[in-house]
Amino acid sequence: MGRLESTIATIKPVDEQAAAAARERQAQLTKPAGSLGRLEEVAVRVAGIQGRARPDVSRKTVFVMAGDHGVVAQGVSAYPQAVTRQMVGNFLAGGAAINVLGRCVGARVVVVDMGVAGELACGRELVCKKIARGTQDLSCGPAMSREQARGAVEAGIEVFEEELGRGVQLAATGDMGIGNTTASAAIIAAFTGRSPAKVAGRGTGVDDMGLARKVDALERALSVNRPKAADALDVLGKVGGFEIGGLAGVIIAAAAHRVPVVIDGVISAAAALVAVGLAPQSKEFVIAGHLSTEPGHRAALEHLGLDPLLDLGMRLGEGTGAALAMGIVEAAVRTLNEMATFEDAGVSGAAET
Amino acid sequence: MGRLESTIATIKPVDEQAAAAARERQAQLTKPAGSLGRLEEVAVRVAGIQGRARPDVSRKTVFVMAGDHGVVAQGVSAYPQAVTRQMVGNFLAGGAAINVLGRCVGARVVVVDMGVAGELACGRELVCKKIARGTQDLSCGPAMSREQARGAVEAGIEVFEEELGRGVQLAATGDMGIGNTTASAAIIAAFTGRSPAKVAGRGTGVDDMGLARKVDALERALSVNRPKAADALDVLGKVGGFEIGGLAGVIIAAAAHRVPVVIDGVISAAAALVAVGLAPQSKEFVIAGHLSTEPGHRAALEHLGLDPLLDLGMRLGEGTGAALAMGIVEAAVRTLNEMATFEDAGVSGAAET
Repeated sequence: MGRLESTIATIKPVDEQAAAAARERQAQLTKPAGSLGRLEEVAVRVAGIQGRARPDVSRKTVFVMAGDHGVVAQGVSAYPQAVTRQMVGNFLAGGAAINVLGRCVGARVVVVDMGVAGELACGRELVCKKIARGTQDLSCGPAMSREQARGAVEAGIEVFEEELGRGVQLAATGDMGIGNTTASAAIIAAFTGRSPAKVAGRGTGVDDMGLARKVDALERALSVNRPKAADALDVLGKVGGFEIGGLAGVIIAAAAHRVPVVIDGVISAAAALVAVGLAPQSKEFVIAGHLSTEPGHRAALEHLGLDPLLDLGMRLGEGTGAALAMGIVEAAVRTLNEMATFEDAGVSGAAET
Repeated sequence: MGRLESTIATIKPVDEQAAAAARERQAQLTKPAGSLGRLEEVAVRVAGIQGRARPDVSRKTVFVMAGDHGVVAQGVSAYPQAVTRQMVGNFLAGGAAINVLGRCVGARVVVVDMGVAGELACGRELVCKKIARGTQDLSCGPAMSREQARGAVEAGIEVFEEELGRGVQLAATGDMGIGNTTASAAIIAAFTGRSPAKVAGRGTGVDDMGLARKVDALERALSVNRPKAADALDVLGKVGGFEIGGLAGVIIAAAAHRVPVVIDGVISAAAALVAVGLAPQSKEFVIAGHLSTEPGHRAALEHLGLDPLLDLGMRLGEGTGAALAMGIVEAAVRTLNEMATFEDAGVSGAAET
């Protein structure tokens, strides 16, 4: 049994008793029943995930995984491939949107090279799990071997488990990879059965010609590779990406360690499809952070049965939508923990009707 | 010229030059153009409001105004009137949802007695602007006199201006008042022309009978009082509330002092209708924090042409939705201020197409 299988084997169901205790406390807090809406729902879910009636999400980490994609040769992106490596440098220097939003919500940002095409100086700041220097062009054949797909997911598990020493209580997933909305759309098409035209979007902002090239590349990818929806490693290997596999590993490891994991946009949702394909029970540990404008994102969330917390017209990736949503999740948990009860505050309850 | 008119006279249009400079900077930051969605729009708006290309919203205040409502005699609420006073005590003790969410986003919570029915100990913690011990029953006649309506709005202006000494850079509005969703629905019906049945909701959670009593009280309120939509003080006086008038004053003063003001749910939206009725130019300074489940809220926001940032199924009031949205506004401003530009970070831009 490999690290992937042994990790999956440790995932237990959420703790219904802790969730019930949190739900009971919600009913005693000084507010009309249900009036905090989704905050109440999220706090109860986190209680069930952590197995604590009074959960704690003070220690937060965003895992930003980077990888390159051979399919960029098909002209599917508005940006050159070098931007993946350059943006990793920006993450390490603290100048990217995810760094700012991580600071806003008090989250650490862990940056991982899962398969960037260029050379990157590894060290304290950058976690190196490079599987290869970018994937092969998925429109012509498999993006990677099955062994590489497994290696990417297992590397994601390792990265998450290395972070456990810091006591991570709430995780988020983020990505960087020029071309990765194409790989994500292919994964989403494979799992949901939707056509490439339905799940392809403009990514970083391709024009109509670029979008047409993307749909064409996706159609070829599916017909050349014939990914099998029932075999998530097959889908990841044939039409995925190294950072997507790594994020699937983060989700599986988070579930194994009872840490709620907030997913970001279309790339993270593709990773969640892979994770849930490998470990269906991991779904209960996933919180959809936001709805991106990429059409494939909505399709993936519907397939997963997840309702996003935010809808702010964002489509940047990096974990930016998930980081913002971490602030909402923490607010939800803190209302559960810190609000006074009717009894404590001497406030009258609703009249019996 | 009274304090109301002199304050309105100082409202200037937003600074288009500062907004344009912020928009230009957005285009240079290390992200695809527009990819931060509404965060970009909000940051540019705040720049225009503050008249600074690099705005600052570090210092935040939520104004929570409380008042009682004679219409509770009609059985329109699930809670007894004493809860207004009891909840003010809870605010002062730090145990209410708004206290927790204020702490989450780093906002001060200023609690104001605008017209609570009982006695409250005023002091450093509680700002006293009591106009009267609750309004009259608006279903039988005017809720208050025109002088009281003006007094409430001017008291709100005073409260805001007293807070200027602390350098408030971002304001939010919140409310407490058993019965105030009924007054708000009446204001919204008066300004938008919608029927009571369309704008009345369950408030703190009345049952079907309670909702029917509420719609009936609203129909009588409108037919007895005939509030004039073109005269906002007439509407506020006949079918409003003291805390609603106070919040309208906060909005007008915020506009006069170029402070963006995030409005909360249906009560704050009713206050915004009054504020915009008195000072149409104040609308540009208002940010809709969230969409509550109260049907009148959507009607009011549509009338104001405002698109809420959050939609989390909340209906608590107190400024809770606005406080959460303050975190989003601050995140928006910080991405504008703190992100690296393509040039700074050495990141390639999009290919010319």
